[in-house]
Amino acid sequence: MSTYDTTVSPSTAGFLEDFAAMSAFGATPGGGIDRQAGTPDDRAVRSWFSDQVIGRGGRVQFDEIGNQFGLFERTPGAPYVLVGSHMDSQPLAGRFDGSYGVLAGLHAVSTLAAETHPSRSSGVNLAVVNWFNEEGSRFAPSMMGSSVYTGSLELEEALAATDHAGVTVAEALTEADWTPIVPTPEIAAYAEIHVEQGRVLEDTGATIGLVSATWGARKFRVTVHGDQGHTGSTLMSDRRDALFGAALIIAAVRRMTDEVPAGSLQASVSQMVVEPNSPVTIAREVTMNLDLRSPDTDILQWAEARVAEVVAAAEAEAHVRVDRQLTHQWSLNPYPAEGVSLAGGVARDLGFSHREVYTVAGHDSTNMKEKVPTVMLFVPSVEGISHNEAELTRDDDMLAGVEVLTETVRRLAESVDSGGN
Amino acid sequence: MSTYDTTVSPSTAGFLEDFAAMSAFGATPGGGIDRQAGTPDDRAVRSWFSDQVIGRGGRVQFDEIGNQFGLFERTPGAPYVLVGSHMDSQPLAGRFDGSYGVLAGLHAVSTLAAETHPSRSSGVNLAVVNWFNEEGSRFAPSMMGSSVYTGSLELEEALAATDHAGVTVAEALTEADWTPIVPTPEIAAYAEIHVEQGRVLEDTGATIGLVSATWGARKFRVTVHGDQGHTGSTLMSDRRDALFGAALIIAAVRRMTDEVPAGSLQASVSQMVVEPNSPVTIAREVTMNLDLRSPDTDILQWAEARVAEVVAAAEAEAHVRVDRQLTHQWSLNPYPAEGVSLAGGVARDLGFSHREVYTVAGHDSTNMKEKVPTVMLFVPSVEGISHNEAELTRDDDMLAGVEVLTETVRRLAESVDSGGN
Repeated sequence: MSTYDTTVSPSTAGFLEDFAAMSAFGATPGGGIDRQAGTPDDRAVRSWFSDQVIGRGGRVQFDEIGNQFGLFERTPGAPYVLVGSHMDSQPLAGRFDGSYGVLAGLHAVSTLAAETHPSRSSGVNLAVVNWFNEEGSRFAPSMMGSSVYTGSLELEEALAATDHAGVTVAEALTEADWTPIVPTPEIAAYAEIHVEQGRVLEDTGATIGLVSATWGARKFRVTVHGDQGHTGSTLMSDRRDALFGAALIIAAVRRMTDEVPAGSLQASVSQMVVEPNSPVTIAREVTMNLDLRSPDTDILQWAEARVAEVVAAAEAEAHVRVDRQLTHQWSLNPYPAEGVSLAGGVARDLGFSHREVYTVAGHDSTNMKEKVPTVMLFVPSVEGISHNEAELTRDDDMLAGVEVLTETVRRLAESVDSGGN
Repeated sequence: MSTYDTTVSPSTAGFLEDFAAMSAFGATPGGGIDRQAGTPDDRAVRSWFSDQVIGRGGRVQFDEIGNQFGLFERTPGAPYVLVGSHMDSQPLAGRFDGSYGVLAGLHAVSTLAAETHPSRSSGVNLAVVNWFNEEGSRFAPSMMGSSVYTGSLELEEALAATDHAGVTVAEALTEADWTPIVPTPEIAAYAEIHVEQGRVLEDTGATIGLVSATWGARKFRVTVHGDQGHTGSTLMSDRRDALFGAALIIAAVRRMTDEVPAGSLQASVSQMVVEPNSPVTIAREVTMNLDLRSPDTDILQWAEARVAEVVAAAEAEAHVRVDRQLTHQWSLNPYPAEGVSLAGGVARDLGFSHREVYTVAGHDSTNMKEKVPTVMLFVPSVEGISHNEAELTRDDDMLAGVEVLTETVRRLAESVDSGGN
């Protein structure tokens, strides 16, 4: 991989040093971070980020769900182009997921705001955002901050969500005391850059991903109802073991992905709760998330039907009853073609290899694109590893992303300024 | 089932009323109890039990691991026959498991102690015991109190055990403040009665079980090591999903019980911990208890070998690494033949149907029989249901058990008194 020349774009200056400083907050021995939403480490990195915004000439404000905005105002009252992602993480996660995009956003907007020869877009303001609780590991649902911001989740519902210890989001926000809380200005367009968390870019040798759609998904909450009993003395034939029923479902759901072409279906179980989860006691109830994703709606529908078969077979073999509730669903969900085109032009003009890609994971931009013109960019993830301390995006790729993001934001702002959106 | 005539034995007088009163402590809406060791409900039932002991002329003392003794002294300095079980429970458990045996023990020893025409055993003292933390659901290991008492577990190790909230046994005991703590007197023999938690007595129409042996067991702690990742974006072929590996083991272990004659092998998984157990995150590690039990050592050895095959297959299919540590093992473990014979004579003389049975579960008597002459009795469990709110032993069976236990304790005491042990 070629060495990136940071003299090409001022927005990349100091970026790697800033990224290293940011990654120290919640750093784990394995080279990752653990910065779940509203925890002391999340609060510390946000405080550091406020200092960075202010140091670069911006001002910091929050909204009622804890989204952190860094505003670079050039023309009071003018609409904003917003750029950002999230700095919260999963437990023992990688240091790139989300955080890279927030810092890239700050470098992009602060560089553009500081230009001594303002472009045609000087009538548009610029802001960076660090969305609250994108990961959803401490407080469900995920993408909480951007969902409340865009109105797909009620503020009151989000504030009432609790973590495992029973702490509500409202309590966590009160403890964090993120102020000032100020109504957010009008946003005219949004851009986000993120690590791919997949291996398409790496496998195809492309540096910049132009995200054109999100895979379709079906998400279920599955509850297996059995009967509590003694693991020693309850005869096998008398058992209604919820954990056995759950195991049959987990195994079968995984194996069904072998029945379709490789790469066309992701099926997973996560966040499993076993009751009473005591030694020498047969589980009476198991709840778990079941997550199906595919770019192909036909495959998704097939998978949903197969899950029904899998569940029925588990009920019969384990003598349990299974409830499954569809909690989220969407079909292949496109990003605006104008944004893909705009970002493709930037990558081409700057000389970076690029290609259109799908995102399997949801992002805050999934919410934003329903409201305003939106661009979503990817940079490569080594081996596609994510939600893992070993997550890695190479320095050159990070810097290329910052440069492409900066120019993308410039053109978005010009487009807004000229009424092009 | 015939109606039991409580005038036959004074030890049964008031028993059902006392049992109902005891069952109110930690009562659950489903008709069971939830009285885990050292919790407020466990403390409350122990306080009630102290009052019962004192009301019947005994005195209460504790030892350093929280075992509760009710002493009925007839001849100062003479050895004791001890009778008891445990009043702690699993979460959402039945009201009979353990508690029945402690209350039966109190009725037996207090009745014998109060006899106006003392038997030949008047030179022997009598005591009831409520062992601490038999269940092991809050603090591992199970049978904690009797294990420390008999020396198979170090006091310091037991005191350092923690619950899920990090509270140690030492802290729980300090909070409970069970006093006075007095060195326990010499114990010459032990008797325990318990609900069967199986269905042999019910299926064969016997009222009294003479426990002649404990099934052999192999207990493992199994740890599945995978790689944390994103459930959405990590390709199926790249996954090392610890939860999938665990599910394969759980399913295969259950299915292997179909390969041997029905009733000859119990195989179970319990107490499963998934890390990080976050939404949209592939598990990096799963730990769980794996429990094999059989009366047949050949089957147990076969099962242990099959587990090794099951684990290897799971490692290969899920691309995980599995550690398994043998935590406990014993072969078919006999109770003293003299005790079985003594109790069989009692049941015969009192006219109750009876038969020898094995116990699949461990009991405090499993510890005690290594130290002193011991008798273990069972009464029937409806449908063998246990560790479940629906656990049930019928009134007539409970009363029959109290009568047989009382006479058994009388003969044990006579045997001790005459040097017969």
